[in-house]
Amino acid sequence: MATHRAVHVKAANAPLELTEVETTSPPPDHVRIAVNACGVCGTDHAFVTGSFPNLTWPITPGHEIAGTIAELGSGVEGFAVGDRVAVGWFGGNCTRCLPCRKGQFMQCVNLEVPSWNYPGGYAESVIVPRTALARIPDGLSFAEAAPMGCAGVTTYNALRTTRAVAGDRVAVLGIGGLGHLGVQWARAMGFETIAIARGAGKADDAKELGAHHYVDSTASDVGEALQALGGVQVVLATAANSAAMAATVPGLAPQGELVIVGATFDPLPIAPGDLIFGNFSVVGHPSGTSADVEDTLHFALQSGVRARIEERPLAEAAEAYAAMDEGRARYRMVLTM
Amino acid sequence: MATHRAVHVKAANAPLELTEVETTSPPPDHVRIAVNACGVCGTDHAFVTGSFPNLTWPITPGHEIAGTIAELGSGVEGFAVGDRVAVGWFGGNCTRCLPCRKGQFMQCVNLEVPSWNYPGGYAESVIVPRTALARIPDGLSFAEAAPMGCAGVTTYNALRTTRAVAGDRVAVLGIGGLGHLGVQWARAMGFETIAIARGAGKADDAKELGAHHYVDSTASDVGEALQALGGVQVVLATAANSAAMAATVPGLAPQGELVIVGATFDPLPIAPGDLIFGNFSVVGHPSGTSADVEDTLHFALQSGVRARIEERPLAEAAEAYAAMDEGRARYRMVLTM
Amino acid sequence: MATHRAVHVKAANAPLELTEVETTSPPPDHVRIAVNACGVCGTDHAFVTGSFPNLTWPITPGHEIAGTIAELGSGVEGFAVGDRVAVGWFGGNCTRCLPCRKGQFMQCVNLEVPSWNYPGGYAESVIVPRTALARIPDGLSFAEAAPMGCAGVTTYNALRTTRAVAGDRVAVLGIGGLGHLGVQWARAMGFETIAIARGAGKADDAKELGAHHYVDSTASDVGEALQALGGVQVVLATAANSAAMAATVPGLAPQGELVIVGATFDPLPIAPGDLIFGNFSVVGHPSGTSADVEDTLHFALQSGVRARIEERPLAEAAEAYAAMDEGRARYRMVLTM
Amino acid sequence: MATHRAVHVKAANAPLELTEVETTSPPPDHVRIAVNACGVCGTDHAFVTGSFPNLTWPITPGHEIAGTIAELGSGVEGFAVGDRVAVGWFGGNCTRCLPCRKGQFMQCVNLEVPSWNYPGGYAESVIVPRTALARIPDGLSFAEAAPMGCAGVTTYNALRTTRAVAGDRVAVLGIGGLGHLGVQWARAMGFETIAIARGAGKADDAKELGAHHYVDSTASDVGEALQALGGVQVVLATAANSAAMAATVPGLAPQGELVIVGATFDPLPIAPGDLIFGNFSVVGHPSGTSADVEDTLHFALQSGVRARIEERPLAEAAEAYAAMDEGRARYRMVLTM
Repeated sequence: MATHRAVHVKAANAPLELTEVETTSPPPDHVRIAVNACGVCGTDHAFVTGSFPNLTWPITPGHEIAGTIAELGSGVEGFAVGDRVAVGWFGGNCTRCLPCRKGQFMQCVNLEVPSWNYPGGYAESVIVPRTALARIPDGLSFAEAAPMGCAGVTTYNALRTTRAVAGDRVAVLGIGGLGHLGVQWARAMGFETIAIARGAGKADDAKELGAHHYVDSTASDVGEALQALGGVQVVLATAANSAAMAATVPGLAPQGELVIVGATFDPLPIAPGDLIFGNFSVVGHPSGTSADVEDTLHFALQSGVRARIEERPLAEAAEAYAAMDEGRARYRMVLTM
Repeated sequence: MATHRAVHVKAANAPLELTEVETTSPPPDHVRIAVNACGVCGTDHAFVTGSFPNLTWPITPGHEIAGTIAELGSGVEGFAVGDRVAVGWFGGNCTRCLPCRKGQFMQCVNLEVPSWNYPGGYAESVIVPRTALARIPDGLSFAEAAPMGCAGVTTYNALRTTRAVAGDRVAVLGIGGLGHLGVQWARAMGFETIAIARGAGKADDAKELGAHHYVDSTASDVGEALQALGGVQVVLATAANSAAMAATVPGLAPQGELVIVGATFDPLPIAPGDLIFGNFSVVGHPSGTSADVEDTLHFALQSGVRARIEERPLAEAAEAYAAMDEGRARYRMVLTM
Repeated sequence: MATHRAVHVKAANAPLELTEVETTSPPPDHVRIAVNACGVCGTDHAFVTGSFPNLTWPITPGHEIAGTIAELGSGVEGFAVGDRVAVGWFGGNCTRCLPCRKGQFMQCVNLEVPSWNYPGGYAESVIVPRTALARIPDGLSFAEAAPMGCAGVTTYNALRTTRAVAGDRVAVLGIGGLGHLGVQWARAMGFETIAIARGAGKADDAKELGAHHYVDSTASDVGEALQALGGVQVVLATAANSAAMAATVPGLAPQGELVIVGATFDPLPIAPGDLIFGNFSVVGHPSGTSADVEDTLHFALQSGVRARIEERPLAEAAEAYAAMDEGRARYRMVLTM
Repeated sequence: MATHRAVHVKAANAPLELTEVETTSPPPDHVRIAVNACGVCGTDHAFVTGSFPNLTWPITPGHEIAGTIAELGSGVEGFAVGDRVAVGWFGGNCTRCLPCRKGQFMQCVNLEVPSWNYPGGYAESVIVPRTALARIPDGLSFAEAAPMGCAGVTTYNALRTTRAVAGDRVAVLGIGGLGHLGVQWARAMGFETIAIARGAGKADDAKELGAHHYVDSTASDVGEALQALGGVQVVLATAANSAAMAATVPGLAPQGELVIVGATFDPLPIAPGDLIFGNFSVVGHPSGTSADVEDTLHFALQSGVRARIEERPLAEAAEAYAAMDEGRARYRMVLTM
């Protein structure tokens, strides 16, 4: 019996333990991937702590997977053993439900997510549906590709679906795992880029990442600071902080958009009257499909945008997770196998 | 000295008094209108009570004006004495500021509003900038045209700028001065139309106005009720009730929009996590320009949509205002001169 | 061995012959439909005459199919024997190619079309992929539903994807199988509707179908006639006549669109200079997916729009086809089984 | 009497002659500009040869003007003597017509163009309406700013109004006065950029300007070459060659757009059938407003995009024009005063 190593979390808040599990063959329309790298995402916290509903313990975290196809299930076309692929938050769609039939794949009623619907990528091997696969272009390593499956696609996809066009002012709220990519994308897309974060200490990092301007939210009124720059067409909110998000609304230009990717369930302190006169929008943005991940990888290669990563071997998964969870990651932990 | 009658409110919360005021000639780029009808809008409350900043007392309320051009200031082209015109909330734009130069007239930094920047339409005569003028087509009376300048354009314009297309499901929250027009527009635009209001008593009215479905928000969970109908692409929120607005979000279809025209400064109890997975938007929508008012009047004529009005002579302005303010208007009070 | 009757065309331009063919079971991800009605479309001409490439003789024409599911292949979920379904021009997509993964199903590189990739609906039984299925709502008969799969969805879908909004002026060029639906949709969608056709004789029909205005292209300059009405935001070109299409361009309003559904390979006599100053667009529009067909059926039921049809039994398929081909259909022939 | 030098063309095809003309004060809502630089545009040919209607001889060519405000007419607000400003093709709009009231300023029915409606910029002094003014940011010289008023804004504005988003493939057809800017903008906006031109000789220039790929239209089938790269979302056609434009259509990706800025009145050899299956659009794009010029200047400064210019003193205007007209300019002639 072939086996491989995988991290198990046996119950909510249980420790991450490396275990040996059986390696099986993929069912129809699925492939088995030999994992080379897997990013550690803030959302892994919601799995490890059991915050998401309908989890089946033990779980294996990890939804920023990059590796090589090791085995094809029946019915898979267009992919071959040896192909380099990434699988992110979007772990497969059903192709049958109404949203799928309308091309709204992120709202698939049977959407699968690695570590939620099947074991994730803190492992040497994963089995995923063919709909989850994104090709990795030559020129990007596995460790570079992995974080693009969630942190990368979420921010890139959010930015490219706004009404902002090159030359417009775009602010990125938060410079963490997602935000440090958001700033880079915004610059590479031709936006006049403003980074907003807490404290003067991040100003240098922001500039290095490509920001034209830096706003320290502890030192100035964010709305006024943004208006002093002319107002922003878009705020991309990556920090999961509802109050901080709301504070950016007065900084929007006419018809501006607050686009949110940082999930939190704290109500936004925003009132209708704050939105009406400026014709402002608040938009929730949900990551992206496997095709979006391919676009993200393609644009990363073209533009030179990369996640700043610290690599750790799979055996140190618990430590890497803890570093991320405690805010010690600069900016993204990636497990390598 | 020529004079005309006009309502004066001398200070915040002072009574509406009919007074005789001097009739002057319009300055350059302005016209004088002999008012025939003026709607009584819920927002008049904010003027009469002094809730808006920068009011100059006495004020004359009224921003749903319909009448005939009586005198042209210099520099006005394309209009003639005798032309039938309407002036709504949009009381003129400067054509010079950056938003104006980008065609974002509703965000003009010098936007004028009748009763705010100059005396409004509870009067026999008003003087307005040429940029405020909308032509009234033959076939619509002054009393029919008046409420289109605010209640009409606000709801029609909000609905036509969403992503919803004919055949989509659209819900209108609230069946009052704005909402009873929203329901009619939605039906006339080809939407599968759902009216949401409090109590079973409004069901018949909703159906009469054209709603295909009625949801009594006191009897059922609004989100569930909307999902039982298949989910709605758009909620047009006319009721200025933040909690009621938020309750509709779970009823949105994928990529759905909550479009708000009911101004209130109570925070919306909506969290980022409520918006992200469905890719939902919350959009504030601000009435419309004089060109939008013309489109509204044109569509009213074409579609047969009309405000349901009760007419009162100018001398009864105080009573008409009170009826509106106390919720006794069914659905729109219009002063006639 | 079970058999059913089907029309065969043995070679390009061969006669339509009714033959008895074996009834087989559907392969995985397919269903067998007992056909109740099938529309006769102008495009059938391209199949019968062999104008399309890669046809496998004999062919069975017919891509406006309505019937009842008679048998399910393995892997089909969400449908049951007895379900009432329609299949139009969109005969199935692969869900695997790049356009499919981007939700651009009409550009699927493996797009299937009834009568092209598998035997069509001039038959008592057809086998189709599950991706081709659109549910028919209660309240629409099979004969009403059938033409919606191509003539209906093509025109409705084209109109709902333009930038025109309710109240705008929309012209429909041609009042035939597609155009007579286009006029009805346009009216039901709230557009000020203009029908354009050849001769005064069609004016009454146009008005009956809902047109607000009629332009006889043999009696007036079409561009001037449209400008006299104020200019049109959209022309929906259903008549496959490039010169007639080009003649509408001078009638567009600023930023107007000529949306073409009438396929012909005659060059459009339109020059860059005709498009630049008005910021005009010429858009080719390709029918719609099975989800679009469902939307079409839903809107037909809601709005009361119906194709005007003449029904013929399957045994008279050759005569029905000839009537369509010779322009004698008023407006749509439907075979019933 | 104050005078200044200006180029006069006395009749169609007459020589460009430098003359001394009276310097007058600007009427209300106009300013007088001391010209520092004026670009020489291919469209100047249409004025000099009298191809445009309603010209009043003598004309002064030049619609890429950069200079300093020398005198304000009454009613001009927000500008002061000494301000650095640019005026391009968009020489002023009326703010009164229906397109103006809808924000469609480029379709203003009273649109003014320098050298058409008033003397242009081949002169030391011009008088222009206040609506024509775009501010030049610090950091751009007059000679850098001048060509942005037409060549710059036309290409930047066309690209930013397509549906293409950063990472998409965009081809620029033609590498001349407009195209060499188009390539630079496309790269700076994050597009995978393809330059298409005639001959191998331009490949190096294309790469230097930022193109990722070069297609020699004399050596390969353009449609096939574009499809070999994956298909392009947008072709920006700057070369005024209808056949060359049409040849790019088969190279479009699904739902791709051919956006045309190169004005010619030769019919495009494109048929409906070429557009329908791919859901392609052909869009005419008309330069941009003074606000668009400001955006262009802003983005030029931010991105480092510059026209490649050859400067000539005003006294050599005839030679500079001839160089442009005979295709000897590399890439843009600019007169300096």
